[in-house]
Amino acid sequence: MSDTRRRFLGKLSFGFGAAAAAQSLFVADRRAGAAEPSGRKLGFALVGLGKLSGGQLAPALQKTEHCRLTGLVSGSPEKARQWAQQYGVPEKNIYSYDTFDRIKDNPDIDVVYVVLPNSMHAEYTIRAAQAGKHVLCEKPMAVSVKECDEMIAASRAAGRQLAIGYRLHFEPYNLEMVRLAREKVFGGLKIIEATVGFAIGDPSQWRLRKALSGGGSLVDLGIYALQAARCIAGEEPIAVSAQAGLTDPVKFREVEESILFDLKFASGVVASCASSYAAVINRYRAAAERGWFELAPAMNYHGIRGRSSDRDGVKDLQFPDVDQFAAEMDAFADCIQNGRPTTVPGEEGRRDVRIITAIYEAAATGKAVAL
Amino acid sequence: MSDTRRRFLGKLSFGFGAAAAAQSLFVADRRAGAAEPSGRKLGFALVGLGKLSGGQLAPALQKTEHCRLTGLVSGSPEKARQWAQQYGVPEKNIYSYDTFDRIKDNPDIDVVYVVLPNSMHAEYTIRAAQAGKHVLCEKPMAVSVKECDEMIAASRAAGRQLAIGYRLHFEPYNLEMVRLAREKVFGGLKIIEATVGFAIGDPSQWRLRKALSGGGSLVDLGIYALQAARCIAGEEPIAVSAQAGLTDPVKFREVEESILFDLKFASGVVASCASSYAAVINRYRAAAERGWFELAPAMNYHGIRGRSSDRDGVKDLQFPDVDQFAAEMDAFADCIQNGRPTTVPGEEGRRDVRIITAIYEAAATGKAVAL
Repeated sequence: MSDTRRRFLGKLSFGFGAAAAAQSLFVADRRAGAAEPSGRKLGFALVGLGKLSGGQLAPALQKTEHCRLTGLVSGSPEKARQWAQQYGVPEKNIYSYDTFDRIKDNPDIDVVYVVLPNSMHAEYTIRAAQAGKHVLCEKPMAVSVKECDEMIAASRAAGRQLAIGYRLHFEPYNLEMVRLAREKVFGGLKIIEATVGFAIGDPSQWRLRKALSGGGSLVDLGIYALQAARCIAGEEPIAVSAQAGLTDPVKFREVEESILFDLKFASGVVASCASSYAAVINRYRAAAERGWFELAPAMNYHGIRGRSSDRDGVKDLQFPDVDQFAAEMDAFADCIQNGRPTTVPGEEGRRDVRIITAIYEAAATGKAVAL
Repeated sequence: MSDTRRRFLGKLSFGFGAAAAAQSLFVADRRAGAAEPSGRKLGFALVGLGKLSGGQLAPALQKTEHCRLTGLVSGSPEKARQWAQQYGVPEKNIYSYDTFDRIKDNPDIDVVYVVLPNSMHAEYTIRAAQAGKHVLCEKPMAVSVKECDEMIAASRAAGRQLAIGYRLHFEPYNLEMVRLAREKVFGGLKIIEATVGFAIGDPSQWRLRKALSGGGSLVDLGIYALQAARCIAGEEPIAVSAQAGLTDPVKFREVEESILFDLKFASGVVASCASSYAAVINRYRAAAERGWFELAPAMNYHGIRGRSSDRDGVKDLQFPDVDQFAAEMDAFADCIQNGRPTTVPGEEGRRDVRIITAIYEAAATGKAVAL
């Protein structure tokens, strides 16, 4: 079975179950249709076959223009075999965490997408780079700035790109917020509000174990608020203060439940941010001289809504609902194929990890931390 | 002309201009109609005939059940005469700031409503109490905790009540926010967001002169966010951190432009608050276990809108749009007439001034302040 067949088999399997009769038609259509702009599609290996990989990334790969799912890395041989069958990945492209380094000998795999618990990002990014692969690593990039430095160094030494999975950099509403700020459509920026949270479920999940997650709502959700604040402000914060909130010390005995953090930028713009694992908060808002613009919900996979307001009233923003992960992976593939640097490099991930470290320090000490 | 006539003349003049033919009819109707529950209406003197008095308080007094405008205190004799004519206040009930203390000999005046720049609240509250009058003082109560203590002591010594002009305590949407929190309609509270701001106009106004205002957006607008956070939380903050924002150092050379402040409560609930004189922000939101409830706009004189959300979706809150100032004054009159303490006493105003002082300290020092 050719790679192309497998790709489409996977697509059909996911969308409609097995539909053998239609396969050749789809493949034929595709072959006759748009050429792959820079030659072959890039092969992606997913490292960690959890909820994000299964619910979002594998399906998104089927929708990409420049990528295909060619490798699977899992601690569960059974799960990997099941996925291989579903997505048409050859058995030889299945790896365990022990055999992972052999990926260097596999030309089917160009990009390793690290979707592991946060504390494992550094190790697998570095091993993937050492195996000569480009790496797309989920956010947060790592659990310390030192790890970020090591990841950047490893990718650089290997001559490979390292991108962080900031999907909202490829989401039209989020991009519009940045444009409205950059072009001063409502005048100079004054205050940014960015809050992200939900009530987390299963108390046994790795996100609540500090050794695996490196932190609570801040590293998982607050990082979106931080990204929003930095991207909308278009500058780096110079100071941060923070307050942690805790109403359920049983569930949140290792990582923070909620955290408020306030950023100050050199321009005098301030950003009021929050994250929570205890309740729903989900909005980015920029208040400028002559109006405001906001997204609410701001960071969902689908269904983002935006509004702007000035003296003429409130207007809905209207953009297509895209597959953010497909857009993210296609953008990375495009950069690799055309030798351009990614817009979300390890250096960008490192900036957030550095600020997150400062936020934790500010919350713990009660002192604003200069950045 | 009797006080009753004057009252209704005033009402008609404000609403419809002079309409002498209709006056006696209205007066007769009123006299024949609902009795004034606890005897006569209480006479209010407005101290300071600025925008709030002219645009809100004098009109609101015409709508009250238990109050009437009987006194005017102004530095401008001409303005006072004009008001006296418009609202049917006798010339003998006009005072200047120099003659103000003679108000003690005037039985027409039961309550002095202090509507002066913030730094003058203490002096006129104390002088009014010493003149034997109940006092309703606009927020912020004063510019220091020491002043608050002196105001409370003066009213207590005089055996008179002191209330602070927290109009939103008498506004149905704001009351509903507190009820939803208190009754845990959406489960336990987790995070409060409260932000209030607008772009301030005239750069020469007293609000931007620290000697008159005592502070910038925080004392004028942030105090609403602080009130919202405290009332929704239903407890007192134990710590606060803050960051000031400044993008226009020419306009805001004496007082703060924007300020973010984060409150932590003993329960572990946190409140993310902000105020601004530079941009429109105007929302209170409470995020709880099973849903959220919010007002946006939250603190306008009219047109407040509210929503709540749980698994069943988002619902609009529906309450009447009331005259908040009329409700505030009627409630105070009712307390006075029935010998019950006001729900918004000087002690409540003092709590806010104390926290505001801590917020300024936190912003200036970069250190969270324990309360």
